[in-house]
Amino acid sequence: MNASSDLRQRTLDHVWHPCTQMKDHEWLPMIPIASAEGAWLTGTDGKRYLDAVSSWWTNIFGHRHPTIVQRIKEQLDTLDHVIFAGFTHEPAVKLAEKLCALTQLDRCFYADNGSSAVEVALKMSAHYWRNSGKPEKTRFISLSNGYHGETLGALAVGDTGLYRDSYSPLLMQPVFVPSPDCFDRAPGTSWEDHSRRMFAHMEFALEQHAKDTAAVIVEPLVQCAGGMRMYHPIYLTMLRDACTRHGVHLIVDEIATGFGRTGMMWASDWAKVSSRTPQPIRGDFMCLSKGLTGGTLPLAAVMTTNSIYEAFYDDYASYKAFLHSHSYTGNPLACAAALATLEVFESENWLARNRELGHLMWMRVSELVSHPHVAEVRQQGLILAIELAKNPRKREAYPAHERRGLRVYQHALEKGVLLRPLGNVVYFMPPYVTTTEEVALMAKTAIDGIEIATRDR
Amino acid sequence: MNASSDLRQRTLDHVWHPCTQMKDHEWLPMIPIASAEGAWLTGTDGKRYLDAVSSWWTNIFGHRHPTIVQRIKEQLDTLDHVIFAGFTHEPAVKLAEKLCALTQLDRCFYADNGSSAVEVALKMSAHYWRNSGKPEKTRFISLSNGYHGETLGALAVGDTGLYRDSYSPLLMQPVFVPSPDCFDRAPGTSWEDHSRRMFAHMEFALEQHAKDTAAVIVEPLVQCAGGMRMYHPIYLTMLRDACTRHGVHLIVDEIATGFGRTGMMWASDWAKVSSRTPQPIRGDFMCLSKGLTGGTLPLAAVMTTNSIYEAFYDDYASYKAFLHSHSYTGNPLACAAALATLEVFESENWLARNRELGHLMWMRVSELVSHPHVAEVRQQGLILAIELAKNPRKREAYPAHERRGLRVYQHALEKGVLLRPLGNVVYFMPPYVTTTEEVALMAKTAIDGIEIATRDR
Repeated sequence: MNASSDLRQRTLDHVWHPCTQMKDHEWLPMIPIASAEGAWLTGTDGKRYLDAVSSWWTNIFGHRHPTIVQRIKEQLDTLDHVIFAGFTHEPAVKLAEKLCALTQLDRCFYADNGSSAVEVALKMSAHYWRNSGKPEKTRFISLSNGYHGETLGALAVGDTGLYRDSYSPLLMQPVFVPSPDCFDRAPGTSWEDHSRRMFAHMEFALEQHAKDTAAVIVEPLVQCAGGMRMYHPIYLTMLRDACTRHGVHLIVDEIATGFGRTGMMWASDWAKVSSRTPQPIRGDFMCLSKGLTGGTLPLAAVMTTNSIYEAFYDDYASYKAFLHSHSYTGNPLACAAALATLEVFESENWLARNRELGHLMWMRVSELVSHPHVAEVRQQGLILAIELAKNPRKREAYPAHERRGLRVYQHALEKGVLLRPLGNVVYFMPPYVTTTEEVALMAKTAIDGIEIATRDR
Repeated sequence: MNASSDLRQRTLDHVWHPCTQMKDHEWLPMIPIASAEGAWLTGTDGKRYLDAVSSWWTNIFGHRHPTIVQRIKEQLDTLDHVIFAGFTHEPAVKLAEKLCALTQLDRCFYADNGSSAVEVALKMSAHYWRNSGKPEKTRFISLSNGYHGETLGALAVGDTGLYRDSYSPLLMQPVFVPSPDCFDRAPGTSWEDHSRRMFAHMEFALEQHAKDTAAVIVEPLVQCAGGMRMYHPIYLTMLRDACTRHGVHLIVDEIATGFGRTGMMWASDWAKVSSRTPQPIRGDFMCLSKGLTGGTLPLAAVMTTNSIYEAFYDDYASYKAFLHSHSYTGNPLACAAALATLEVFESENWLARNRELGHLMWMRVSELVSHPHVAEVRQQGLILAIELAKNPRKREAYPAHERRGLRVYQHALEKGVLLRPLGNVVYFMPPYVTTTEEVALMAKTAIDGIEIATRDR
């Protein structure tokens, strides 16, 4: 038995992989990876894979960026970890300062992953209202088809059925508002018009529920796990205004979309561009993770305002403190990795580069727009999604069990490209360091794979 | 302004620290740490602190253990990270194999922190019953005074009022059973008798609720965040038996107590010793984190059985898969840190050493047993807790607002020892590498601090 098939068997013997029906791996080979560099993964058998999804959208500067590797090593030589209650350290403080400057928010609360960050924001919001004499404000409003993580609080405010249904008796019930997702817009309607019209549902929900609602939570512009469905930034502009009018917090979940992914530093920055307002749209809470450490270590941050912070600031005996903690909160190694990631950011105009690379991605797959089994090709910066459908004109989707997207995945793996789909949605979410040649490979592989996967058998 | 006071101000300006009333830091100095090695932290002003709580119970082999540092660096030079769905790698597989062998369980599901691990176990348990045709089994039973983390699911099954009360409208409601905590035993009653008697409550709850209950969750032997309250291992033996009889899962939360902390590899191993059974007590789920990476990186693991695993193993279209995921699930760097931690474990008989060091800790503070303001000195391996009380004979506690424990903390910081209390409970939970001299320092500091803190003013 060679090293690859041995490791494949060992993982099937003892590991339970995330977000996986393990039985699939009776026919779908589990791929053992030995090393990684830049946009490429190398298998234990030497085969290379272009990581076109940035390993679940985390490795924004590719793998093992030398600056990030170096900074983590330096941190290992000084301070690995220290309790973050009563104690502090330079990497956490410097990172908080930088994140405050980048988000134009005032305060940084650390957590370990996206789910935990969402939980912190939900808890802080409800606790704020309690501390402010409005303990009845405990509900949340979120969008249909949204996704905010997997721990029970984060899962509760999400609406991707596959993930949520099995646990409904364990979950609090938010108010779900129909998503402004533009995939379903009427023919001839612009994204902006569709998103604007869909806002009526949100306005209505706020009118009905503001009294007992703590916050609205949204993924800005792209509902990522929900199939990379997209909407127009005007919705964010209207939402910010409405939340303020109704006295409800806005939680902006930039976990997947932050750090330049959409061609702006934050997806919510597009609201400023589109509505030509001088001020950017800011949530009362902003959740960050994934790209934060450039795909090296788990870390998350919840950014918020001083006015929220002040509602918790009181004498100990008032019991107003936010007592949330995780053992590794503010872990110096993860903070050093995040600082290094921001250092890489500052080394070049990545936003301009990402917009250019995004344009190139579009050019390379634009022919798919007229493919008989492609319902939509949509894009926001370095997120490009291709939605397959049995009959796009009749809005007839492929049945889930046919797993057409997975056939594209299989074809791509053979060709050395990692293109893990979301159901029938094939997407690119590559590292920012991806070259034009690599974009060409990724596009050709997707086009060929879609051709094969949509052929009737 | 020197470096220390500068960093202190900067952290107060932009960071929101976990589990902290930030206003306390108007008079309680926030301590900036520059570096750490072994059992010691070094402040930016050069002052050193003995880390007698292993930085929230994580740095079990002290700080920057050379083996762990080296292994993380080596991993940084090969594979930083890769998506863990459809892909696998040696560090995650090898770690899963080792954890399976150490826990005598079959399967390893990774997460990022203790809260997430608890959420995984809760979700997996309820989902198991749903997949097995018993969808009504969705409730949980847990102990009063328990703590299992801070995300909303983990928080719901905990019962430390301070943490939970502010969020009750957001939380599912478990069945709380009075804890077997031996602090409250009647005079003359042994720990074993008390815990045995308290089991009647659990038996009753199982009789009443087994039909709609998925699992019982407990911290074995020590309710850590709940003030290091302890109980006798006979309770675990009885609980394992009762869970099996009633068809309810047992979730053993070894997050704080695992990896040798109590003088056995797992706290639940003490059940085997105490009941003289040939087989150890095993949960259907076992949650691990904290010490898992030796206090370097956030990582968690949920260990479970193949019989649980098989209830999820089916054709894709059955929708039985466990779709939980976190972006950094199975992160290679964290897995390498955990493997290195186990390598250090194997290098020496740490369990014997920890029991010896625990004995020494006891000897050094035994005089406190007769202190007029000490209600109890209790110990399980390298966890030693001293509970202060206004009048122990009359069971009269100190009012919380007097913050006697915090006065001990302040005294200890002055003397260069980090002894963060839990309310009126001062405790030691030192790194396993702590020397006899360091134990002497820690004990003397605690004794003196308690003397000062309990003097009436």
